[in-house]
Parts: sequence; structure tokens; C-alpha cells
Amino acid sequence: MKNSEDNYQNLLETSIVNINGEILKAEQAKISVFDRGFLFGDSIYDVTYTKDGNIIFFEDHIDRIYNSARLLGMSLFVSRDHIIKETIKTLKHSKIKNAYVRIIITRGETDITLDPNTSFKNNLIIIVRPQKVHPKEFYENGINLCISSVLRNNIKAIDPKAKSGNYLNNVMAMSEAKNLGYDDALMVNEKNEITEGTSFNIWFVKNNVIKTPHEKAGLLKGITREKIISLCRKNQLNLQIDNCYTEEIESYDEAFISSSTRGLIPVRTINNKKFLPPNEMKIYQKLSTLYNELVVGDKNNGQYNYL
Amino acid sequence: MKNSEDNYQNLLETSIVNINGEILKAEQAKISVFDRGFLFGDSIYDVTYTKDGNIIFFEDHIDRIYNSARLLGMSLFVSRDHIIKETIKTLKHSKIKNAYVRIIITRGETDITLDPNTSFKNNLIIIVRPQKVHPKEFYENGINLCISSVLRNNIKAIDPKAKSGNYLNNVMAMSEAKNLGYDDALMVNEKNEITEGTSFNIWFVKNNVIKTPHEKAGLLKGITREKIISLCRKNQLNLQIDNCYTEEIESYDEAFISSSTRGLIPVRTINNKKFLPPNEMKIYQKLSTLYNELVVGDKNNGQYNYL
Repeated sequence: MKNSEDNYQNLLETSIVNINGEILKAEQAKISVFDRGFLFGDSIYDVTYTKDGNIIFFEDHIDRIYNSARLLGMSLFVSRDHIIKETIKTLKHSKIKNAYVRIIITRGETDITLDPNTSFKNNLIIIVRPQKVHPKEFYENGINLCISSVLRNNIKAIDPKAKSGNYLNNVMAMSEAKNLGYDDALMVNEKNEITEGTSFNIWFVKNNVIKTPHEKAGLLKGITREKIISLCRKNQLNLQIDNCYTEEIESYDEAFISSSTRGLIPVRTINNKKFLPPNEMKIYQKLSTLYNELVVGDKNNGQYNYL
Repeated sequence: MKNSEDNYQNLLETSIVNINGEILKAEQAKISVFDRGFLFGDSIYDVTYTKDGNIIFFEDHIDRIYNSARLLGMSLFVSRDHIIKETIKTLKHSKIKNAYVRIIITRGETDITLDPNTSFKNNLIIIVRPQKVHPKEFYENGINLCISSVLRNNIKAIDPKAKSGNYLNNVMAMSEAKNLGYDDALMVNEKNEITEGTSFNIWFVKNNVIKTPHEKAGLLKGITREKIISLCRKNQLNLQIDNCYTEEIESYDEAFISSSTRGLIPVRTINNKKFLPPNEMKIYQKLSTLYNELVVGDKNNGQYNYL
């Protein structure tokens, strides 16, 4: 617990927050308790990151914000240009070269009512902090996952495609994984189809065939996922986007995850199944290299350079 | 939209908020953007109300807070007595005789991570405002409901028994209902079993047999629901707590909803089905009278009188 307090203290000391255009120290960054994001999780968000002062795949993230809003029927009273401008402003102010950027848009404050049609404004919150350094061992040795007993939200209940402030489903799966000694968890739907991890997409490889769950299983279309799909096609790799079942896991040679902030991380085990050691994962190594090149390429386009 | 702004303005002017013991004007009532309730909806809450300075069924609501916390594995660093004391303090300060009381407990601020085991404190927020006067027509003429196309959350994904800050599922169902011109919505699960409304439990009557969905369908065990169950048993009314299917709706004579803040409200229609006019609903009228007597009885126990 002491460690948790220290981590939070560090977050406070190193973060900069923009609330509706006002740049604030983390300690002063507060929102009304009547904000629908706080009362109902009635908000959307997206996370991107920066490399040497460049916002990586920024357009894709902004697109996804609009898609999340559309899926939740959320009126956006802020323009695309405004979100971009405020994000750059916050990053400039922070002077952080390699930043984690969380953009949150809520349906604002309203009377206390479920009806979201009462929304007459948004609150736009941008949190900028130094990117976390993810443990080197994760990339070298792989991570250990479990299959969570917590089902991923049904598409017809809350569509996982919308990145929203309702994340208890994922929080509960993560909690279970940690309590059982795993690094993280994979989640299945009611049909026992693998969907995604608590905060990442999942990939499997068998005999050079790459497989990742189809979006109809109920998952967030990760931006890194989209990039990998393009890379597979561009490099004539054999990719199947299809139903993935837990019973198939045993048969795979490689497994890895993808995430905007973490890139590609090899998976060492899922429950009792042990995959190849990461240095022997040919497809993972290849895609990881290709993806990292893509990030460097994006970094050089300069459009979203803020330093 | 002007109306929505006015309603929010009124909320601000008439509410009192207690944040971690500090009594604040609504306008000053703010929470850190790093609070897990804001970031992930990682919070629990309960709503009760008061009548002539008495908190109604307060113990039941406090019990449910503890149950919600248990279901979400949330550590509570605040004691039961503390929650009670702070609620009474806030009500006393407000001087509101007939109040709406919303008690929210979050997993506090942590580093930005899904893992809830990083939680080292709670934030306790108590919002007190004058109770809304629900339209008389609702009680006299009944309300019009639709069956939402939004499925209620699966018990194994996010258990509806936990009253949490993840309310987008209900928000989306309410939005659909309003957009289609209904007062509110009923929600079914993947098996097409009726679960509950967006913020209430549902009851049906046919030939003097009362029916309400079983909790295994996925619903919040409403405190008013529990009271009605007791009243049915005490008064030898024929009650079935069982699976309820949408196809059965056509066959019912009466339907009504139950909610802590609204009591019992007759339902006039569900989609195209029209029930008896409320003054001809014998069971509804009987249970409504019995329930109102119970509330008056509770009011007189004096234990949670704050004026």
C-alpha cells in the first residue's frame, strides 16, 4: 500500500492536466461531482503517447474518440481541431518528450438523471504525464496471462468498441488476475470466444499463421491492432481474423499482445500453456520490428511535433 | 437544452455536498480527475431519501453499500458508523426535510492503472438535495415503457446487484426510451428474460398472482422490492419470483414499478400492450397503500431523525 501511495504521489508530481482549456497542476485538477463521468462513467476517452515530442498515430486516436462518441450517442460540443489544439497546448506546457496522453470527454454536468439527452456541454480533460517505462523483462521473457472468469461485456449491453468511462468490467478481470499472481487477463464472451485482454488485443501464431479475434466477439479495435493488420497484409503474412476459442490455445506456438502505450509484448504463458520463449518467436520478433519502424516513421512526419 | 441548463442550475443552488467530511456548496464540490470513480466508474453508490427529517430504510441502504463493495472486491476504509454519521451531518446542515441522498464511495485516487489493488483510500461523497416531486400523472395515469434493445449487463460481466459507477448500460437504455417517446425502459438479458428497468424493479399481475423477475436474471435487489416481497408474504398475497419473459407481457392485467425514491408507480403500457387503468389495478393499489404505510412507520422509528 505504501508503494501505491508513492506511485500516486509520483503521478501527482509529474502530471499536467488541462480541464476545458485551463492548464492545471495535477493536485488542482478537479471536476464537479455532478459530472456525468463521475456519476455514471458517462464519458469517453482515448490514450495516446508521444516519442521525442511527436504524438504517435494521433489522427487515429482522434478518429476513435469520434467513433466512441457515436457509439454512445454522445453529442460533442467540442471540435476535432479544438481537441487537437488543446492536446498540443498541454504537451507543450508539460515539456515532456515521451508522454502518456489521456484525453477524456464527458457528457458534462447535468441534473442527476440517467437521461443523457439532458447533456448541454462536455468537459474535456487532458492528462499528460511521462510515459511509464514498462519492465524490460516483459519484452524479453514475456508476460503471464490467465483466462478471466469475468466475461467481457456483451456487445448489445455495452459495446467494448466504445472506449468509455465504464471500465469496471476490465478492472474486475485485472483484479482477479493480480490476485491469482498473473500479470494480466484475457477475457472471453458468453460464447467462450476470446475477445481481448483487459487493456490490449491478443494475437496467436501457429505454423506461421497469425490469428487474432474478430471484432464481432466484442473488443476494442486497437490502433496498434489496426497497424499490425496492415503490416501483415503489406508483408504477405498469413493473417486470420476470426473466432478464437480458449480450447485452441494449447495448439499455438506464439502469443503476444498489442497496445498503444506498450507496443507488442510476448506472452509466455496463458494459464498452464507455455508458448515458445520470446527470442524463438519468429513472427512476434518480425512484427515487433516492423511495428517499431512504423512508430519511428510516424514520429518523423512532424505534423504533431510539439517541442 | 435551455431547460436542461435550468435544471442543472437548480441542482447547484439547492444541493449540499459532503466530500470526505467537508460540507461544501454544490459549486465547490469537486473531485480529483485521478479518482478511480471518474476514470473507470470504479465506485459504488446508493440512494435513499428522507421524509419529514427521517432517513427512510437507512440501514437497508447501508447494508447494500457493503454488499456492492463486497461484490466488487472494494476495500472500505470508512466504517459503517462513519458513513451514517456523515450522512446525518450533511442532512442536518442542509435543513432539507424531504431530501434525496446519494452516497458515493470510490476506490480513491491511485496511479492510472486498472489494478484496483492499488487502492489505499476511499473518497466518500454525500450529495443531499430536495427530493424531486415526481409528476402526479405518473401515479394517476401510469407510465409508458418500452423493451430496450440494450441488453442488461450479464451477471458474469458486471453484476447488476452491485450498484456501481458503471451506469452506461442503463444510460443507453434510457436514452433509447426517451428518443422513442417512452418514459423509461425495461431491459432483458441474453436469454430474453426480463431483468429490471433502468433504475427500478418491475412487477406484473395476472388473476391476482403477482410476479417479479428472479435475481438470477441479473438485477438490483431493490430495497422497495424487498419491502414488497415482505408485504406480499405478510398479507398472504400470491407472489411468484421467477423468470419473466417478454412474450408473457401480453397476458398480464397489471404492471407497476418499484423504486426507493419513487415508491410504486403503475405502468400503463409496455410497447403495444396496454394494462388496466391504474384505478382499476387492485393489487397495485393495495400494495401501494401498504408500502406507503410502511414508509410512514419507518419515519416514526426516530432513529435516523436529523431535524
